[in-house]
Amino acid sequence: MEIAILGGTGDIGEGLALRWARDTDHTLVVGSRDAEKAEDSAADYEAVLADHGRSVEIDGATNAEATARADVVVAAVPAYHLTDTVEAVADDLGDAVLVSPAVGMKRDEDGFHYNRPGVGSVTELAANAAPEGTPVVGAFHNLAAGRLSDLDAALDWDTIVVGDDGDAKATVSDLAEGIEGLRALDGGPVANAAEVEGLTPLLINVARHNDGLHDLGVRFN
Amino acid sequence: MEIAILGGTGDIGEGLALRWARDTDHTLVVGSRDAEKAEDSAADYEAVLADHGRSVEIDGATNAEATARADVVVAAVPAYHLTDTVEAVADDLGDAVLVSPAVGMKRDEDGFHYNRPGVGSVTELAANAAPEGTPVVGAFHNLAAGRLSDLDAALDWDTIVVGDDGDAKATVSDLAEGIEGLRALDGGPVANAAEVEGLTPLLINVARHNDGLHDLGVRFN
Repeated sequence: MEIAILGGTGDIGEGLALRWARDTDHTLVVGSRDAEKAEDSAADYEAVLADHGRSVEIDGATNAEATARADVVVAAVPAYHLTDTVEAVADDLGDAVLVSPAVGMKRDEDGFHYNRPGVGSVTELAANAAPEGTPVVGAFHNLAAGRLSDLDAALDWDTIVVGDDGDAKATVSDLAEGIEGLRALDGGPVANAAEVEGLTPLLINVARHNDGLHDLGVRFN
Repeated sequence: MEIAILGGTGDIGEGLALRWARDTDHTLVVGSRDAEKAEDSAADYEAVLADHGRSVEIDGATNAEATARADVVVAAVPAYHLTDTVEAVADDLGDAVLVSPAVGMKRDEDGFHYNRPGVGSVTELAANAAPEGTPVVGAFHNLAAGRLSDLDAALDWDTIVVGDDGDAKATVSDLAEGIEGLRALDGGPVANAAEVEGLTPLLINVARHNDGLHDLGVRFN
């Protein structure tokens, strides 16, 4: 399977690219608005993987070119760029599954808080921006980028997958479980995404207030 | 330490009473609007504990009488009864710490959703209803009552503790960690309670959509 990671030069994109490249045989293409930046990041990721004994080729391309090649497109961009990014690649999605890992947060003096969009969730923003017929799946919302990108760190985390298309959700769950230490759990339809996204500020608040805990994820048990 | 569990005849109250009675030496009093109902539940809990080889005395009393005796008062009532319950015992709180485990949820065809009160969170509702000077701590929001009440079930869960009074938060964290398999984590001030409460509908949604998972809690790691 070919996976495009739009915004793949950012921190969550980096982590997903490195983990999939190390742990699976999927073909990866890093997307960016700037093709050269994407190629540079892809080369950096190849070097990290080589250091970990894994020789793989990762391409870099514009978001649109990356999307046109892919079976699964992960929009690993900040929430405030999500709608623009999805609309910019809408004509290139074809039959691909679109995956949204973005979370909107705001910070005040007390901590981080979920900044819920009017449409219900950030995942629903992605679904609204996607073309009719493109299945949209929410996943990877609650992964701490720092640990995800550190290939020496074990994960032992769950990721909740939400979506209205069962086949697309199964595809994304399989991709998630290809990453060592990651378990995919079904969170129901996209309408349940807000509760998933809201977990991310909680993880950050808990990490800030407890010595020895950082880059947190969760296990449901 | 003496712990009053208001609404202690309900499912979360039952679980906390049984666990504290089995795992700690704290004195427990079950509160209810109806003293006789509280006494009946307390007797039931004593019988369950005797079946588990633990001979303890648990009292039942009205919520006000239970509150007047206690060092820590847990308002284990549904969110829509919380303000009334706290106001009804306000004159009896004295120097006690008030603990709020309630979460507001609504259910629709897609799943369970967090029903955030206008004041910010259910824990903040409790803080607003409490008398000036009573420290209010949010804790035990994310514990599945079914497993909590089943003394044969292991927990392996975290509970997030939020509050604006450090001493009160430390007291409640110690009480939480007295329960075998439960770890208390600091979530920051009461203003961070919404993200904690919002985890509960997520736990229910995940349990509903994944075979073999039920009565879920979380571990942060």
